[in-house]
Amino acid sequence: MKKFKIAVIAGDGIGPEVIAEGKKVLSGIAALDGTFAVEFTDFPWGCEYYLKTGEMMPEDGLDTLKAFDAIYLGAVGYPGVPDNVSLGQLLLKIRRGFDEYVNLRPVKLLEGAPCPLAGVKREDIDMVVIRENSEGEYADVGARLYPGTPQEIALQTGVFSRKGCERIMRYAYELARREHKTLTSISKGNALGYSMVFWDEIFAELGKEYPDVKTQKLLVDAASMMFVKNPKRFEVVVTSNLFGDILTDLGAAIAGGMGLAAGANLNPERKYPSMFEPIHGSAPDIAGKGIANPLASIWSVSQMLDFFGKEDWGKRVLAAIETLLVEKKTLTPDLGGTAKTQDIGEAILEILRR
Amino acid sequence: MKKFKIAVIAGDGIGPEVIAEGKKVLSGIAALDGTFAVEFTDFPWGCEYYLKTGEMMPEDGLDTLKAFDAIYLGAVGYPGVPDNVSLGQLLLKIRRGFDEYVNLRPVKLLEGAPCPLAGVKREDIDMVVIRENSEGEYADVGARLYPGTPQEIALQTGVFSRKGCERIMRYAYELARREHKTLTSISKGNALGYSMVFWDEIFAELGKEYPDVKTQKLLVDAASMMFVKNPKRFEVVVTSNLFGDILTDLGAAIAGGMGLAAGANLNPERKYPSMFEPIHGSAPDIAGKGIANPLASIWSVSQMLDFFGKEDWGKRVLAAIETLLVEKKTLTPDLGGTAKTQDIGEAILEILRR
Ligand SMILES: CC(C)[C@H](C(=O)O)[C@@H](O)C(=O)O
Ligand SMILES: CC(C)[C@H](C(=O)O)[C@@H](O)C(=O)O
Repeated sequence: MKKFKIAVIAGDGIGPEVIAEGKKVLSGIAALDGTFAVEFTDFPWGCEYYLKTGEMMPEDGLDTLKAFDAIYLGAVGYPGVPDNVSLGQLLLKIRRGFDEYVNLRPVKLLEGAPCPLAGVKREDIDMVVIRENSEGEYADVGARLYPGTPQEIALQTGVFSRKGCERIMRYAYELARREHKTLTSISKGNALGYSMVFWDEIFAELGKEYPDVKTQKLLVDAASMMFVKNPKRFEVVVTSNLFGDILTDLGAAIAGGMGLAAGANLNPERKYPSMFEPIHGSAPDIAGKGIANPLASIWSVSQMLDFFGKEDWGKRVLAAIETLLVEKKTLTPDLGGTAKTQDIGEAILEILRR
Repeated sequence: MKKFKIAVIAGDGIGPEVIAEGKKVLSGIAALDGTFAVEFTDFPWGCEYYLKTGEMMPEDGLDTLKAFDAIYLGAVGYPGVPDNVSLGQLLLKIRRGFDEYVNLRPVKLLEGAPCPLAGVKREDIDMVVIRENSEGEYADVGARLYPGTPQEIALQTGVFSRKGCERIMRYAYELARREHKTLTSISKGNALGYSMVFWDEIFAELGKEYPDVKTQKLLVDAASMMFVKNPKRFEVVVTSNLFGDILTDLGAAIAGGMGLAAGANLNPERKYPSMFEPIHGSAPDIAGKGIANPLASIWSVSQMLDFFGKEDWGKRVLAAIETLLVEKKTLTPDLGGTAKTQDIGEAILEILRR
């Protein structure tokens, strides 16, 4: 029987609470299915680990993780540990170290999910954002000159390689082709004359190989407006690392909130493990209270199932989340319910068992 | 009698149509007031000029503009001229050349203006975004390596100087102090470890000089979500050039749309002329039809009056725009009316004369 080995980094704040529910759902599904098994190995890495050891994960952390089929990540970040350290040494280190160059984030309004936009229907918000996840603005290249003087200067360099741009765009073009959807590239060529003009050029070049795919090109400022005014015009979106970061949080805002936003960090060649995570933060202010919403974490289980080739279960998990939202019986306080975090996994399984 | 000399660059697409209305309003106000005069000098610069001459404005363009009290800009950009050329050689060249380091953009929902957010009231959206306008991500520093080969790489470097960060933040701190408002700094220190960590440090340092100003710090991704979910939490916002670009378009989306979004590009020391513009684009698809909404262009006249020390008139223009929106008698089609672009200036003056 196929066994999927999953490395769990529950992380900080509400991470452990929401991950526990996702694990319940995944184990429950394996039991229901009967043809595959899942095995979780927990790693206590994160900010507490950092405060004890001075590092977010051991030096050979990536080597350890290499043996797994997937990584399931909760949330990282804690007051007292600088953000750029906690993220740079764990989340971003794994994304880069395992060449998880595709960050796939659905922005999809489920029935019953709250939406702050007036007059918007379920079918009006249904896109997937393909965010470049390995280079670009996040390349971590920079310098600080003349520190502490009035002449001080900080430089931050975005690095865009042809290979990096081509592979993320190819992924997006293929997806758009497969699903007969319009592909939108979001960039900023009018102001960023090196990186984004390059991006635009490559997007246009590749388009010649995909004459059947309908495309549009949008400036990031206009796109952020359109997410609010006309989200329907987006189907498959491809964009840079930073723009993807901003637009998917905006996407979460219009499609049910952070409690429902999941993201997959994929190494499509499967040379390294891929990583699945809710895209919310560690929310230390509500940690340990049992009120965190684990649906994003459960949605990322659905993405994991897709990636394991169990698309059928992936779809069923998503449908179960939607049923839960529609029935309104077992929801956390952020969604207007009175259920506890630890009730949600079982509620999803109960729906799956019907 | 004081005479304000205004250089007008109506520009491309709908630029000339919307600027014509702003000029009407400004001339009309000078006549009503009787204590000052305005003198417009038109410059035919822009994309048509480029197609004829190969440049967006003459080489000595900045020298010519130096003699004016203000620049009134319509819109720039036209199919057939690459965006980074048309903007880089005109709009961005003036912003940088005249050290207009403050880009001041009100995000304010007027009574009667359309808002795509459900359940949001007029007083819920009332902020001003102070965007750094002279350096940062827009520094135009970069390179292209190994062009045309599979190894090709584009580098784009953001340049953040202590002086540049300090002066924009000081402007924002002073404004927040004067108006007893909360100041929010929007950055991205968790991923951009050089530029944005530097930004955050300087913001915190300066805060010590302004202990009376309440501040908060937000990541740009979280901020873009909050603009939609809880815009009320923003009063004065200070942010970088690129983040300001994205967030003010998002701000326009929630506060009445692009037809109502104005921006002032200020050189606060008044060493060089400041520039006032609607922040919308040239919209070539609707140019010449008389259906463009000139209210953003008229709102920027209100900002110009503020800058000239005629704050009273600035407020009255804004109030007149609001009256126009509430009365709904003379509105362009984008706002549900049947009026023509060229009716709006006179309609505003009619309200001001009441
Ligand atoms: C935590 C942070 C570094 C991260 C990012 O910016 O990528 C997060 O916002 C995300 O979107 O996954
Ligand atoms: C036209 C473009 C270069 C400009 C910018 O990005 O600054 C515009 O979007 C704006 O916001 O004024």
